[in-house]
Amino acid sequence: MNKITKLFNIKYPIIQGGMIWCSGWKLASAVSNSGGLGLIGAGSMYPDVLREHIQKCKLATDKPFGVNVPLLYPNTEEIIDIIIEEGIKIVFTSAGNPSLYTSKLKHAGITVVHVVANSKFALKAQSAGVDAIVAEGFEAGGHNGFEETTTMVMIPLLRKIISIPLIAAGGIGSGQSIYASLSLGADGVQIGSLFAAAKESSAHENFKEAVVIAGDGSTYLTLKKLVPVRLIRNEFFNTIHKACIDGKNKEELLEILGRGRAKLGMFEGNTNEGELEIGQIAATIDSSRSVKEIMETLIEEYGITKSKMSQSLGI
Amino acid sequence: MNKITKLFNIKYPIIQGGMIWCSGWKLASAVSNSGGLGLIGAGSMYPDVLREHIQKCKLATDKPFGVNVPLLYPNTEEIIDIIIEEGIKIVFTSAGNPSLYTSKLKHAGITVVHVVANSKFALKAQSAGVDAIVAEGFEAGGHNGFEETTTMVMIPLLRKIISIPLIAAGGIGSGQSIYASLSLGADGVQIGSLFAAAKESSAHENFKEAVVIAGDGSTYLTLKKLVPVRLIRNEFFNTIHKACIDGKNKEELLEILGRGRAKLGMFEGNTNEGELEIGQIAATIDSSRSVKEIMETLIEEYGITKSKMSQSLGI
Repeated sequence: MNKITKLFNIKYPIIQGGMIWCSGWKLASAVSNSGGLGLIGAGSMYPDVLREHIQKCKLATDKPFGVNVPLLYPNTEEIIDIIIEEGIKIVFTSAGNPSLYTSKLKHAGITVVHVVANSKFALKAQSAGVDAIVAEGFEAGGHNGFEETTTMVMIPLLRKIISIPLIAAGGIGSGQSIYASLSLGADGVQIGSLFAAAKESSAHENFKEAVVIAGDGSTYLTLKKLVPVRLIRNEFFNTIHKACIDGKNKEELLEILGRGRAKLGMFEGNTNEGELEIGQIAATIDSSRSVKEIMETLIEEYGITKSKMSQSLGI
Repeated sequence: MNKITKLFNIKYPIIQGGMIWCSGWKLASAVSNSGGLGLIGAGSMYPDVLREHIQKCKLATDKPFGVNVPLLYPNTEEIIDIIIEEGIKIVFTSAGNPSLYTSKLKHAGITVVHVVANSKFALKAQSAGVDAIVAEGFEAGGHNGFEETTTMVMIPLLRKIISIPLIAAGGIGSGQSIYASLSLGADGVQIGSLFAAAKESSAHENFKEAVVIAGDGSTYLTLKKLVPVRLIRNEFFNTIHKACIDGKNKEELLEILGRGRAKLGMFEGNTNEGELEIGQIAATIDSSRSVKEIMETLIEEYGITKSKMSQSLGI
């Protein structure tokens, strides 16, 4: 049996990334109901909103689901307590130190996975006692690592140095790329962009349309003096990225950035002035489909790839 | 039969990238003798030097080999004429417009491959009549595309839009990643960094040592206001990259850059003051090995991966 399907008791080793403004109970339950692992993204939720989404998700699926918690907000302690109170069994932590909450979560009987973007934090997470690691490459949407290591390089690199299950993320949007990720040494995959554009995603339709339109080179990693973030090139991107290129300092960048830009773009649908966080793989996304259709396509493509690759091909 | 092995009449669909200061006749002939396709990198050679390398390569192997020509130097016409005079049958062009020399080369009976880093140039190269395309991802060493599309994203994207054979490049340093690249839709792979560090590479031992030492995050893409280039972070990198971050303009950057930096670092072995062009995959390269040993390892790893992946894995 696959290590990831076993760890989470799911049918396919496919995890839907917990994403701000996209992954509420509707998306998470749909993915879990289709045989993957759905994650509620707590990053854009006030504590009460998160509790509501957890409760609705429990009603919408009897399959395992989890919560993603970015460890960078002041209310993280409160979020963690709600997760434990609500009896959540799977937590993905990201954007922070894996030593902070892993013990507390593990003591509550929770399976803990930490998201990393380099080998140093992969080893740190493993030492902290997490059950698995998500390794996210440079091509991924939203916040990103400083090393800029891509999925193609990161997975073989981490596979050599960690022994716990490894989940590949970044640039994965087809059954072919799931198969490729497992070939590189991953035990499963985490898919973000494809699900961000799904019908069940809580993102604004304007944002989903921007993802569908996006082509090669439409996203770019910027704001490297703050925290690097991959965005669609829109008016806001052009303004903030020009400021970066012109050598503006942190304070000046923060002033241009203002507050609530991701909500403005992804949830309220202002695709000119808002931050539109999505991965490079958006270039291959041509429509907003239901989670069921996405999952069926992924499994079909995986099967075709496996069959093709089992033939000779010259090696 | 595999499209790439058939196109070049070689045993394995593995091409050694033509790299400045690394790939002379010794490296190219060793790769061709081991069943791959060796390429002499004309980018760092004066016309007479190229002619000498071609003649020596012919004596060193009876297998097919080719020449890589970056289309950005003033003497390109002369280089192309030498290649035709010497009866070279395979040419890879890069860093320029594929319409420029494809017809001339094709009329001379030469198989032409063009290196691209985005979908626009892939389509342009296909229209120009090339026989295959190398698609090089962001993780690759040396000069790089402006879109920053990674191999994981680029291969499925280009596979959808082009019909001619597709060669994946960038981040490939193991049999696992060759297998993954073919899963993504490539017909073959081009490998640079692994061969740059090979015993037969003409690069300086100090450079090879720097590649072996390099870990996660040791390389970085810089000089984006000129032509983006991936370098090892050394003293020179720190100086030029700080100038980029501080918002220096093209002229100021060119002054800091000076001339002959790549030769200084890669050929003369000044690893502090020179440019050290290498891919992210350097993080997985632990020793300088012979081409024969590298090729045998790649084929062995490929076989192990194929065998592993033909089993179930939960999908």
